[in-house]
Amino acid sequence: MPKVAVIMGSKSDLKKVEPCFEMLEYLGIDYQQYTISAHRQPEQAREFGLTAREGGFELIIAAAGKAAHLPGVIASWTTLPVIGIPIASGELKGKDALYSIVQMPSGIPVATVAIDGAKNAAFLAAEILGLKYPKINAAYDKYRQSLQGEAL
Amino acid sequence: MPKVAVIMGSKSDLKKVEPCFEMLEYLGIDYQQYTISAHRQPEQAREFGLTAREGGFELIIAAAGKAAHLPGVIASWTTLPVIGIPIASGELKGKDALYSIVQMPSGIPVATVAIDGAKNAAFLAAEILGLKYPKINAAYDKYRQSLQGEAL
Amino acid sequence: MPKVAVIMGSKSDLKKVEPCFEMLEYLGIDYQQYTISAHRQPEQAREFGLTAREGGFELIIAAAGKAAHLPGVIASWTTLPVIGIPIASGELKGKDALYSIVQMPSGIPVATVAIDGAKNAAFLAAEILGLKYPKINAAYDKYRQSLQGEAL
Amino acid sequence: MPKVAVIMGSKSDLKKVEPCFEMLEYLGIDYQQYTISAHRQPEQAREFGLTAREGGFELIIAAAGKAAHLPGVIASWTTLPVIGIPIASGELKGKDALYSIVQMPSGIPVATVAIDGAKNAAFLAAEILGLKYPKINAAYDKYRQSLQGEAL
Amino acid sequence: MPKVAVIMGSKSDLKKVEPCFEMLEYLGIDYQQYTISAHRQPEQAREFGLTAREGGFELIIAAAGKAAHLPGVIASWTTLPVIGIPIASGELKGKDALYSIVQMPSGIPVATVAIDGAKNAAFLAAEILGLKYPKINAAYDKYRQSLQGEAL
Amino acid sequence: MPKVAVIMGSKSDLKKVEPCFEMLEYLGIDYQQYTISAHRQPEQAREFGLTAREGGFELIIAAAGKAAHLPGVIASWTTLPVIGIPIASGELKGKDALYSIVQMPSGIPVATVAIDGAKNAAFLAAEILGLKYPKINAAYDKYRQSLQGEAL
Amino acid sequence: MPKVAVIMGSKSDLKKVEPCFEMLEYLGIDYQQYTISAHRQPEQAREFGLTAREGGFELIIAAAGKAAHLPGVIASWTTLPVIGIPIASGELKGKDALYSIVQMPSGIPVATVAIDGAKNAAFLAAEILGLKYPKINAAYDKYRQSLQGEAL
Amino acid sequence: MPKVAVIMGSKSDLKKVEPCFEMLEYLGIDYQQYTISAHRQPEQAREFGLTAREGGFELIIAAAGKAAHLPGVIASWTTLPVIGIPIASGELKGKDALYSIVQMPSGIPVATVAIDGAKNAAFLAAEILGLKYPKINAAYDKYRQSLQGEAL
Repeated sequence: MPKVAVIMGSKSDLKKVEPCFEMLEYLGIDYQQYTISAHRQPEQAREFGLTAREGGFELIIAAAGKAAHLPGVIASWTTLPVIGIPIASGELKGKDALYSIVQMPSGIPVATVAIDGAKNAAFLAAEILGLKYPKINAAYDKYRQSLQGEAL
Repeated sequence: MPKVAVIMGSKSDLKKVEPCFEMLEYLGIDYQQYTISAHRQPEQAREFGLTAREGGFELIIAAAGKAAHLPGVIASWTTLPVIGIPIASGELKGKDALYSIVQMPSGIPVATVAIDGAKNAAFLAAEILGLKYPKINAAYDKYRQSLQGEAL
Repeated sequence: MPKVAVIMGSKSDLKKVEPCFEMLEYLGIDYQQYTISAHRQPEQAREFGLTAREGGFELIIAAAGKAAHLPGVIASWTTLPVIGIPIASGELKGKDALYSIVQMPSGIPVATVAIDGAKNAAFLAAEILGLKYPKINAAYDKYRQSLQGEAL
Repeated sequence: MPKVAVIMGSKSDLKKVEPCFEMLEYLGIDYQQYTISAHRQPEQAREFGLTAREGGFELIIAAAGKAAHLPGVIASWTTLPVIGIPIASGELKGKDALYSIVQMPSGIPVATVAIDGAKNAAFLAAEILGLKYPKINAAYDKYRQSLQGEAL
Repeated sequence: MPKVAVIMGSKSDLKKVEPCFEMLEYLGIDYQQYTISAHRQPEQAREFGLTAREGGFELIIAAAGKAAHLPGVIASWTTLPVIGIPIASGELKGKDALYSIVQMPSGIPVATVAIDGAKNAAFLAAEILGLKYPKINAAYDKYRQSLQGEAL
Repeated sequence: MPKVAVIMGSKSDLKKVEPCFEMLEYLGIDYQQYTISAHRQPEQAREFGLTAREGGFELIIAAAGKAAHLPGVIASWTTLPVIGIPIASGELKGKDALYSIVQMPSGIPVATVAIDGAKNAAFLAAEILGLKYPKINAAYDKYRQSLQGEAL
Repeated sequence: MPKVAVIMGSKSDLKKVEPCFEMLEYLGIDYQQYTISAHRQPEQAREFGLTAREGGFELIIAAAGKAAHLPGVIASWTTLPVIGIPIASGELKGKDALYSIVQMPSGIPVATVAIDGAKNAAFLAAEILGLKYPKINAAYDKYRQSLQGEAL
Repeated sequence: MPKVAVIMGSKSDLKKVEPCFEMLEYLGIDYQQYTISAHRQPEQAREFGLTAREGGFELIIAAAGKAAHLPGVIASWTTLPVIGIPIASGELKGKDALYSIVQMPSGIPVATVAIDGAKNAAFLAAEILGLKYPKINAAYDKYRQSLQGEAL
C-alpha cells in the first residue's frame, strides 16, 4: 500500500489540516505527518523531498499560508505529485497563499485545491492513488456514491 | 499505456491549450482531444464523464475560461482525477476562471494549475501517471534533470 | 398560478436563503424548496432541470457558495429563467461565488443578484412573473410603493 | 408581441452592446434602442422609467461602465424587470461596473449578466419573455438545441 | 452661514455617519440630516437634489453602502458639490461602495473620501466652505494646528 | 477671481492630466501648472503647500500614480481643499493610486475623483469655487444643461 | 553600536508594532520609538527625517495603515534605509497600506515587509546592520540556526 | 568594495531587470548577474545561498514573476539581506509575485520593492551598503540631490 506525506508549514496550521487526516483515515490511506517550514528549515525540506520516493511515499500533500512556498519548494526537490493546500492566515485571507501555490512556473506543477480545502486534498489523493490501488479507488467510489443520496 | 483526455470548453481556447498537447507528446503520453461546453452541451459532458474510465482514460485535463465550470462538471460525473486549467479570457483575465475551478466544494476536488498553465497540466499528468507507469516517470524525470543545467 | 423552485447547493446555505422564502410568501408566490449539490448530486440536478418546466415551475432560484456552479448547471439543463444568488462562505467571502455565477458563457445566462442577496432574488422573481400574472405584479407594486414613504 | 428597451449609458458603449441587438433580432424579439446617461440626463432616465410599462415595454436591458448606475437608476423608476450589462471601460476593466450593478440594495433588484455579456442579456430576455410568449420560448429553445451539437 | 445636508442611504448607516455629525458640530457648521434611499425613494432624492440650493444648502454629504448610487444620484440632480462616503456593509466590505462612488462618469463628479471616512467628509466640507466663510476656515485651521502637537 | 493649482507628480502624467486643463479653460477658471514629486522633491512640495493660500490659490488639484502620495502630502501642508486624481500607471492600473489617495487618515481629507478622472477634477473644482464665484457657477450650470439634451 | 528608529503613524498601531520592539531587544539592537503622523504632523516627520542620520540613526522602521504614506514620506527626507510595515486597519485590511508603501516611485525606495510583519522588520534590520556590525550578524545567525531544529 | 548579486528567476525577466544593472553601474556598485530558477534549479539556488557570503557578496537582489519564490528561497539559505523585485508576467500582472515575495513568514524577511521596481532595488541596495561604504552613500546622496531640482 502507498504512503502519503502530509506536511504543514507551521504548527499553527494543524487545525485547518486535520480534516485531511480524517479523510485519509476514512479512505484507508496510510499517511505520515510532518511540520517543516520551507524558509526556516530549508535543509529539512530538501532532505524530505530528495528522499520521499525512496522512503516509500507516492504522494505529498503540503499546506501553507501567506507566501506559501512550501508546496512549490517540496515540488522542486521531487518528481512525486504534490498537492498544495492554501491556508487562510493573516489579513489577505489565503489569497496570498493561493497565488503563491497555484501560479507555479512551467516545469514544476503543484496540484492546488481550494483555500482551506484540506478535505479535498485527501479526496484528490484518493483519485490519484486509486489509479494504481483498486482498494483506494473502491473506498473513494463508495464515498462518492454515499454523497448522491436518493433520487428526487 | 494510459490515455489522457484533454477537454476544452470552447474552440477559442485551443491556442492556449496547445502547449499541453506538445508536452504530452514530448513525454510520450497518449491523449485524445475534445471540445465540450459544460453549459451548452451538458449531455455530452455527462456522457463523457460517465464513460471515461471504461473508455480507457485514466486522467482528464479540462480547460475553461470565465465561469469555468467544465473541470468541476466533469469531476461531478467521474472519480478519475481531473486537472483544471483556468484560461484567461475576457476582462477578469482568468481570475474568474481560477476561482471557479479551484474553489470546488468538499467531496469533488479538481487539481488546479496556474492561469493559462497548460504545460504544467501535462507535467502534473506525468507525475500522477508516473506512479503507475515507470516509462512516464522516466520521461518526466529526464525532463526535470534537463532543467537543472550545470552547477554554478 | 406559477411555481418557483428555490434550490440550495448545501443545507448550510439555508439561513442565508430564508429571506428569499419570506419575501416569496409575502408576495404570495408559491415555491418549493430543494437542496441539491451540483457536484455531489449531478444526476439530481440534471433530473430537476430536465423536468422543471413540465413539473409546473416557471422560474428557478439557485443559491450556492465558493465555486458556485449550481445556478449555471441548472441553467444548462433547462431554458427556464434561472436567478443565481452568490452565497458568501469561506475566506473569499462570496467573490468566488459571484464570479462563478455571473461570468456565464455565451448562450446560457444566469440572472445574478447581489452576494447574499436572497431577498432581491424573490423581488426579481416577482418582476419576471408579474409580466404574466397581474396578481404578482400588483403585490410587488404595492411593496414598492410602501418603500417610497412620505414626500420630503 | 412584447417590446424590449435596450439603453446604453453612453454612445461609446454601442460596439459592446451590438451583440445584444443581433441576438434579439435573431430570436425575433422587438426592441428599441436608447442612449441615456443616468447622471447627465437624470430627467430622461426618470421619464423613461416612469412611462416604460405604459409605452408597451415589458423588459429593459441597461448597459453601463465604471460607476454603472444606469440599470439601478432605471430600476428605481419602474417595476419592470431590468437586466444589467456591466461594460468594461477604463482601467478597472468592468469590475467597478459589475459591483455597481450587481450589489443593488434590498427591494430593487437588477438581473446582472457577465461583464460585456451583451449576448446573454438577449438570451435572458428570451427566457423571461418566453414564459408568456410561446413563440419567443420556441425560438430560444431551438437556439439552445442548435448549441448541443451531435452526441460524442 | 451655510447649511450642509448629510444624507444616508439607509438608517443602518447611522452609526458609521455619526462621527461626521460630531465633527460638523465641533467645527460649528450647521447641518441637516436625511435618510433617503436612491433606489427605493428616487422621487425624494430628486426633489431633494432639485431644491437643495434654493433651500439654503451649499454642500451635500451622502453616505451609502454596496452599490452606493446615492452620492451620484444626488449629484445628477444638483450642481452643488457632493461629498461621497463609501460605507462598508456586506461581504465586499465597502470596495463595492468605493467603486460605485468614485468611478463617476465625466461631467458629474463626486468628491470621494475613505471607506467609512465620515470624519474626513466633515473636514473636507470645512475646507470647501472655509473658502467663503472665514469662521469655518478659522475653526478648521485651529483643529489642524491642534493635531500638530509639540515639536520633536 | 480664484486661482487653481494643478500639480502632477511626474511629467509622464501630463497627457492624462491635460483634459483637466481643457475643462478649466472651458469653464473660465484660471490655473497654474506644476510638476512636483512628493518624494523626490519634498522641499518644493512643502514650500508650495505652505505658501499656496497666500499665493492666491483657493484650490489644489494633484495627480499621481502608483504609491500616489502627492495629494496627501500637499494636503498635509495646507488647509486648502485638495482634489486628488489617481493616475493609472504601471501594472496595478491605478488601483494602487486610488487606495493611496482615497484612504487618507482622519483629519486630512483628499477629495478623490475617478482613476484617470482629470475632467471631473475640473468640474468638481467648478462646483466648489462656484459657491463663492457666481460666474464659475454659471459656467458649470450651463455646461450641465448642455449635457441634458432634448427630452425623450 | 547603531540606533534604529521605529516610527508609528498612530498610537493605535502600537499593539501591532510591539513584536518589532521585542525582536530588536532580543537581537540586542538599540532602538527609539516615535509616533509621528505623516499627514497631521508633517513638520515633525520632516524634522525627524532631516536629522536622523546626524542623530545617530542608521536605519528607520516605519509602520502605518490605510493610505500609509509615512514610510515614503520619511524616505523622502533622508537617504537612510527605510523599512515599511503595512498595518492592517480598516476594511481594506492592509491591502491599501501595502500598495501605498511598496509601490514607491523611482528614486525613493522603501523596503517593504508583510502586512502586519513587525517581527520581520526587526529581522531585516538585523540583516542590514549585520553587514557592518558583526555582533548583530552573530545574534541573527544564532536565531536563524535556532529555527532550523533537528534533522528529519 | 562590496559585491551585489542580482538573480533572475528566468531569462525572460532580463529586460525588466536591466534598469537595476544600469543604476548599480551608475552608483558605482559592483554586481554579478545570475539566472537561477528556484524550482527548476533548487540545487543551484541552495549552493548560491550557502556560499554567497563567503563569496564576497554583501547583498542579494532577486527578481521573479508569478509564484515568485526565488527571493524567499534564496533568503532561506543565507542571512544576507535579500531585496525582492516582483516581476509582472502573466495575467495576474505581478500581483501574484508581489504577494509571494512580500508575505514572507516570520523569521525570514525579504525587502520588497514595487512591481517591476528594478531601479529602486538598486537604490535600496545603495542605501543599505552606504551605511558601511561612504563612497556608495555619497554617490546615492548626489543622485538624490540631483532629483530635487531648483526651488519653486
